[in-house]
Amino acid sequence: VPARYELHYWPGIPGRGEFVRLALEEAGVHYVDVARGPQAEATLLRAQQQASQPPFAPPFLRIGARVIGQTANILLFLGERHGLAPKSEPGRLWTHQLQLTIADLVGEVHDSHHPIAGSLYYEDQKREAKRRTEHLIAERLPKYLRYFESVLGADRRRARWLVGGRLTYADLSLFQVVAGLDYAFPTAFARLKRNTPLVVALADRVAGRPRIAAYLASPRRQPFNVHGIFRHYPELDV
Amino acid sequence: VPARYELHYWPGIPGRGEFVRLALEEAGVHYVDVARGPQAEATLLRAQQQASQPPFAPPFLRIGARVIGQTANILLFLGERHGLAPKSEPGRLWTHQLQLTIADLVGEVHDSHHPIAGSLYYEDQKREAKRRTEHLIAERLPKYLRYFESVLGADRRRARWLVGGRLTYADLSLFQVVAGLDYAFPTAFARLKRNTPLVVALADRVAGRPRIAAYLASPRRQPFNVHGIFRHYPELDV
Repeated sequence: VPARYELHYWPGIPGRGEFVRLALEEAGVHYVDVARGPQAEATLLRAQQQASQPPFAPPFLRIGARVIGQTANILLFLGERHGLAPKSEPGRLWTHQLQLTIADLVGEVHDSHHPIAGSLYYEDQKREAKRRTEHLIAERLPKYLRYFESVLGADRRRARWLVGGRLTYADLSLFQVVAGLDYAFPTAFARLKRNTPLVVALADRVAGRPRIAAYLASPRRQPFNVHGIFRHYPELDV
Repeated sequence: VPARYELHYWPGIPGRGEFVRLALEEAGVHYVDVARGPQAEATLLRAQQQASQPPFAPPFLRIGARVIGQTANILLFLGERHGLAPKSEPGRLWTHQLQLTIADLVGEVHDSHHPIAGSLYYEDQKREAKRRTEHLIAERLPKYLRYFESVLGADRRRARWLVGGRLTYADLSLFQVVAGLDYAFPTAFARLKRNTPLVVALADRVAGRPRIAAYLASPRRQPFNVHGIFRHYPELDV
């Protein structure tokens, strides 16, 4: 019997854990979502402290005695093990490169509402958040979206998925980014995404995958809220 | 004849390119450092545009027709190909996990002087930079440094290197972080690093590797300056 997968993440938000959940759901792997069970935070902290190779921060995946941290690294692991990435070395690294670029985008979205410190409330850095989000919407989001649009548009086969005609974990993550931006910036992103139809179509295609559709309709999927990475503050959505 | 390695990065700064340079130097691989040659920026932009799998941003490594981007991804590639990471899957992923944590730290250091936007001058976000750097020095750097200290201290063998008793690209990168913090925050980091002797000793050990020592003494090594990721602004170093 292979050891069970335990996903450890902060309770109450989709956050970075959601990128891992989407991969686990698409792969059809059984996993325990510790964040949705009792005493989630205490369980997480205990698992983090007991790990012989401790992760710096959640999310992390525990498999028996092994603990794997860093979202993109967990996806690298799941991609190899569950067919969510090409087997060839160039394809594997290209998928990971796209994932790391998505991670950069996600980090910038997080810092748009927390430009000074994660330890402060949004309310304590509101003026700075306003300034940073203006640059995010005017410069950074268009640049990232154009980039993924160009990757999808590079040839006809790739227009279906980011990498070589087959779904990878990077597609699942890009779907999550589109969903998050739809929630956080309904006005600004509605405007921006008119220029990136291939990205929008990719997100729709992911949402229509049978296992992903079942997941999204289930109580396992958590809604976005103003405690996570993608936050909707109307004053920032311009 | 294997295709030559071309490292593409912005000229004039060590920046993220330096993490790749250190790996190439330690591996003893011949490479062309495009940033140090003529028309570096034009050459970089042309290589970026012509790539069939274009990177979002530098640094990237070009090897014949292949282009590999994202610092940590380039190191994953070099680690496998040139013995700068364990061959086993768990060791390979643990090394990469540490590298991604270093990448997070580097991103936070960058944003301490650019908390609003990379497209603005430091002078246009000086007040916000002051605020963010206070949190960086009081909260984030100690947390990261404690983490790497604990990884090194986890057992006697590991105290030499981060991963399983042998040098990996993550050690080279942690050296670069220590060197960068020494430059950027001579006062604050002198205080902080008293609590992390294993991290300091690791950095010294890396600097003493024959190939790294030769590199650091050569004109190939670029000094830090106030255009890169690690910047020294006396008003922030408290």
